[in-house]
Amino acid sequence: MTISTLQKARYSYNPKLPGMLRNGIAEICVKNGAPTESVADQEKIKALFPNTYGKNEITFQKGANTSTAKKQVVGVILSGGQAPGGHNVVCGLYDALKATDKDNVLLGFKGGPSGLIEDDYIEMTDEFIDQYRNTGGFDIIGSGRTKLETVPQFEIVTEVAKKHGLTAIVIIGGDDSNTNAAVLAEYMAAHNTGVQVIGCPKTIDGDLKNEDIETSFGFDTATKTYSEVIGNIERDANSAKKYWHFIKLMGRSASHVTLECALQTQPNICLVGEEVAAKKQSLSEIADQIADSVAVRGNRGDNFGVALIPEGIVEFVPEFSKLIAEINELLAGEKTEQFNALPSWDDKYAFIEKGLTAESMAVFSILPVGIQQQLFLERDPHGNVQVSLIESEKLFAELVKNKLAERAAAGTYTGKFSTLTHFFGYEGRCAFPSNFDSDYCYSLGYNAFMLIQYGFTGYLSKVSNLSAPAEEWVAGGMPITKMMNIERRNGEDKPVIRKALVELDGAPFKYFAEHRAKWADETCFLYPGAIQYYGPAEVCDATTKTLALEQAK
Amino acid sequence: MTISTLQKARYSYNPKLPGMLRNGIAEICVKNGAPTESVADQEKIKALFPNTYGKNEITFQKGANTSTAKKQVVGVILSGGQAPGGHNVVCGLYDALKATDKDNVLLGFKGGPSGLIEDDYIEMTDEFIDQYRNTGGFDIIGSGRTKLETVPQFEIVTEVAKKHGLTAIVIIGGDDSNTNAAVLAEYMAAHNTGVQVIGCPKTIDGDLKNEDIETSFGFDTATKTYSEVIGNIERDANSAKKYWHFIKLMGRSASHVTLECALQTQPNICLVGEEVAAKKQSLSEIADQIADSVAVRGNRGDNFGVALIPEGIVEFVPEFSKLIAEINELLAGEKTEQFNALPSWDDKYAFIEKGLTAESMAVFSILPVGIQQQLFLERDPHGNVQVSLIESEKLFAELVKNKLAERAAAGTYTGKFSTLTHFFGYEGRCAFPSNFDSDYCYSLGYNAFMLIQYGFTGYLSKVSNLSAPAEEWVAGGMPITKMMNIERRNGEDKPVIRKALVELDGAPFKYFAEHRAKWADETCFLYPGAIQYYGPAEVCDATTKTLALEQAK
Repeated sequence: MTISTLQKARYSYNPKLPGMLRNGIAEICVKNGAPTESVADQEKIKALFPNTYGKNEITFQKGANTSTAKKQVVGVILSGGQAPGGHNVVCGLYDALKATDKDNVLLGFKGGPSGLIEDDYIEMTDEFIDQYRNTGGFDIIGSGRTKLETVPQFEIVTEVAKKHGLTAIVIIGGDDSNTNAAVLAEYMAAHNTGVQVIGCPKTIDGDLKNEDIETSFGFDTATKTYSEVIGNIERDANSAKKYWHFIKLMGRSASHVTLECALQTQPNICLVGEEVAAKKQSLSEIADQIADSVAVRGNRGDNFGVALIPEGIVEFVPEFSKLIAEINELLAGEKTEQFNALPSWDDKYAFIEKGLTAESMAVFSILPVGIQQQLFLERDPHGNVQVSLIESEKLFAELVKNKLAERAAAGTYTGKFSTLTHFFGYEGRCAFPSNFDSDYCYSLGYNAFMLIQYGFTGYLSKVSNLSAPAEEWVAGGMPITKMMNIERRNGEDKPVIRKALVELDGAPFKYFAEHRAKWADETCFLYPGAIQYYGPAEVCDATTKTLALEQAK
Repeated sequence: MTISTLQKARYSYNPKLPGMLRNGIAEICVKNGAPTESVADQEKIKALFPNTYGKNEITFQKGANTSTAKKQVVGVILSGGQAPGGHNVVCGLYDALKATDKDNVLLGFKGGPSGLIEDDYIEMTDEFIDQYRNTGGFDIIGSGRTKLETVPQFEIVTEVAKKHGLTAIVIIGGDDSNTNAAVLAEYMAAHNTGVQVIGCPKTIDGDLKNEDIETSFGFDTATKTYSEVIGNIERDANSAKKYWHFIKLMGRSASHVTLECALQTQPNICLVGEEVAAKKQSLSEIADQIADSVAVRGNRGDNFGVALIPEGIVEFVPEFSKLIAEINELLAGEKTEQFNALPSWDDKYAFIEKGLTAESMAVFSILPVGIQQQLFLERDPHGNVQVSLIESEKLFAELVKNKLAERAAAGTYTGKFSTLTHFFGYEGRCAFPSNFDSDYCYSLGYNAFMLIQYGFTGYLSKVSNLSAPAEEWVAGGMPITKMMNIERRNGEDKPVIRKALVELDGAPFKYFAEHRAKWADETCFLYPGAIQYYGPAEVCDATTKTLALEQAK
């Protein structure tokens, strides 16, 4: 067997387009909206994007297609981490391109932006594309993390574009990749290359979100996949009644993924990094908050529970960020060698004790020894602490255990506390896209081609009104510059799309905040089960709770 | 919201019974088969079970119901670890019981066998049962690991049975629980209590399997859940092309779960404990075998892959078992205290070096320090090494890394090797049961009641021909004693159901062995995706590859 039965079945799923794109290529025309300006720093952004700034928002509608007939040769790349539905963006793009003119060409550049620089590509055909319809993964052409942002790179891309006669490049990626798409679009326009650039909003992290991007693709499928296994673990906890499960979830730095999973599964505890930062919480305070739930439950005999922990949590804890900064300083340059030469951990510990401030040492000293050692021994090529490797699920399990020991000694806790830890991330990035992501991604790709065909550049493929049925979705385009502001990055002022953190006054967090006391005390677990692609619409076609709450009338 | 949309939708699923049970209670009669004898040690087993040994196998068929009309009061318990479908066994039992006579009573004893001893129970009603139809978990009445095996326990159970007027007890559990069901049945018969005992074969591990039990329930759903996430990770590996994922899977000690997942996902590497034992492989040999695949792939630029590792693997490695035995000996009794008093790990290491044989020290010295420390520091209440906690996924990742460093130095390996590790177990035990497990479990429960109604005791509820459509399944009963032999357990000869290990000359392993060289070298990943409950039959209704291969004509 070379493919699974589900993969075979999914090939014949017909993704739903927004109603306005359903009448055939000949019946799609442009409706102009208002001119745009960037969300902040208008003068600076305008100066950086003289050729692409301030264009109109547009939507598509039913009407005679007035685009210019010309042969299109489009290049597409996938950029950054995998997200379910990437294949469908390519499929939608391909179908619109071929429906417009069967002589149009789609080139897939391999391994991310580097494929465009190294001119490593494949020409898409029906037979090839058909193997990837409605499937997960980025294996169709691979992905990569090379950043496309320097003028020398742009010069090479221009050469490659010229060689193939490219009329447009579609960049499927996250906030950085879309920022770079805007910069490349400006470069191409300024140099009269005739190459348009269109971006598509991808990331499971959910942090590419603003008034124009209701959700990035992949977030729906990834959070449903995590929620499936979280729900299964909750049910196990509620059956065995003897473990607390500490579950870390991917999605740095924002806590969107974890919050969405909490809305889907109603665990006892869900940490939200943005709240921790706003309240300037310490590790000890967070541990106490979890211990409160464990104690209330344990004192009545419910010695089980589930706690969700966002991957980026420790970066939001002020005292921990300070500790990390001090460690990086303590081991800067040749001091690493000096440290590594110390013969035993005891010697190293003495060195650390001498080097850290009393405040940071107080934080360091409560960490489990495994995490203490990791902070000093496993460092990235620049000698910095690898925050993403910190096993915060084990950290909090340990801190809570210590808190409970104190409470037991004080007579306020009489339960038992056994923990199991998990980390979910890679399980969700390449799942078969949900019907929502299949439809949304296909629409983004289809729509991206319509933007190309109508001559737009520096635009993001925009599909909105996403909590409604696909029929009512609104397809169009938004100048990427509209989403930009100036931020300090690596010591330079840069025009970038702002990363969206969880808003503490947003509807999803507020819903959570209203219910969490009950969830912490009682057992309100929800078991979402596996993503369903067939069956009742209420099971198969709903998107995230985040979007439903944000768009609730 | 109090339940998920899938849970609500699953309530209305109508589990499929074997054809012979579909004509209504009035049309089910018994067809006697041959008398049975135990698979081995016939004289000894017969002597231990004078009242229940040697009975006939029976099947049900369409015909006038000739069972005696009497009010049935049945007790049911769930025993041991969770397995998807347990709720449906209870539902099937309840439905058959109530269809026979609405005055019949089903009592669910809570928290496993201890519920029966402590007389902690709930009387089942339609309203109560309907909340659990086709759902995962054992939360309907909970489960527990108390063993029901001593005469004092049986005396208490007899009292509880008398109090409630119990006519039968159904024990849903694994090999040990079914063994104990047979012993209890014999006790009840010998003491003329009038209480029948019926067993149902549960375990995700797949090791409760023999010529009469084609598969234990839960194995199908659990392996599909693990295969979903393994397939997603494979697709991620094949997209990012930069990680080797080492994935440990639950299911001690046998490797059925891991082998089934390998058949479903075609990873590069799958270790099978039974083969390791048969070939008397060393850790180093296993690491070399994995390194061979990494090197072949890495040398052509494919620096990614997936390796599946059964939880029980290290117990099958002779040199490792020897090491564990020596460690247990080294720390026996008061020696633990002496060891713990040593101030540093260096001191402890010196103690270990002095205490182990040279052979075991050679094994110990190649282990990652984290695992070395775990072996000595995290011990069970009896002071023994906790084999199940050994992070063998990290162990092999580390050993392979060392092998590759040697090869790189020798110039035979030019790739890069970065690893990520995972452990899946709790994710699969409480998933919504697949259609197969929903049907199979409901049939087991329904059938269990028919065995009760016809007066059988010491029987296992048996449903077979499971790779065919449910219509063609064969329902009946088999004396549990038939599956027994005598084994040495804790220094005593005991009658037990033999645990089924993976058979190296069985069809599933042979299929794997024929294909693994290709899977190791090439990328043949299969992506099964999430369990589907609706949709095309070939996606939703097929059971495991293991069963399909075992029953292939």
